[in-house]
Amino acid sequence: MKILGIDPGYAILGYGAINMEGSKFSLCGYGTITTASGVNMPDRLKCLYTELMDVIQEYEPDVASLEELFFNSNAKTAIMVGQARGAVILACVNSGLEICEYTPLQIKQGLTGYGRAEKTQMQAMVKNILRLKEIPRPDDAADALAAAICHGHSSGYRRRFQEKLHGSAHVR
Amino acid sequence: MKILGIDPGYAILGYGAINMEGSKFSLCGYGTITTASGVNMPDRLKCLYTELMDVIQEYEPDVASLEELFFNSNAKTAIMVGQARGAVILACVNSGLEICEYTPLQIKQGLTGYGRAEKTQMQAMVKNILRLKEIPRPDDAADALAAAICHGHSSGYRRRFQEKLHGSAHVR
Repeated sequence: MKILGIDPGYAILGYGAINMEGSKFSLCGYGTITTASGVNMPDRLKCLYTELMDVIQEYEPDVASLEELFFNSNAKTAIMVGQARGAVILACVNSGLEICEYTPLQIKQGLTGYGRAEKTQMQAMVKNILRLKEIPRPDDAADALAAAICHGHSSGYRRRFQEKLHGSAHVR
Repeated sequence: MKILGIDPGYAILGYGAINMEGSKFSLCGYGTITTASGVNMPDRLKCLYTELMDVIQEYEPDVASLEELFFNSNAKTAIMVGQARGAVILACVNSGLEICEYTPLQIKQGLTGYGRAEKTQMQAMVKNILRLKEIPRPDDAADALAAAICHGHSSGYRRRFQEKLHGSAHVR
């Protein structure tokens, strides 16, 4: 299963594609999409939408994994972030991609087993799980990879639970 | 000039198309796009996007006019509204439509000359300006028409100001 993790934002969007075989993960690629602050919002959204469509076409993921974001900022910022998320979700859904959302708590627990893990701990886990030489940069790309790994773990648990439930011979 | 006013929302989106010739307005049509609360957000956004694309194709407007919304609600609601706005903006920009945004204050002032006008006053003005028999229903459609009229007035002022500046013979 190929998973595309996305960390949505209107100025910088992080993405990271990983492959999951059994319970083993490997990196396909990661990067960011940036939009300039001087550009008007419709053009920035179009840029996010179009470039993310290109990323999806390049990596051909089976599913997209997003961080569900409900932060305590002002309504203006929340609406702008929401607009970027709208563009991200549409790029996925218009590419026929299933979307799964996870709260920051779920992602932290999924990666480190601890819901209050620090950013540096999360990034170290991403590096270890994907057997990378360095921590992925920038943070947005590392966050996207964390969301992707979280979905991989979560679907792995679900599959094993289903197998147990139905008495499959493939229980690990 | 044909203007499509849009009142974005994820549960109900209002739209209204008007025609402006000189300083005269006439109604082309109005309506709503609704999405069911039981449906997941990606599918609701896709529905808004696709149906709004159909509306744009039907009315072939020259420009879209949106209310710029920065209300004081919680961050969760603001993100959901932002996502719907993202879908709306993308449907417009992917249809090659120019987008203009106006604050609630600008729309109220543009229609009634008074920034603190009541909803009922606004709706009465929409009815009068478009020479309708009844106030358009629901409110979302009336709000969309108000945004469209606001853009018409605003671009009319701008045009007349430009003409005056350049000494055109067509000053009204």
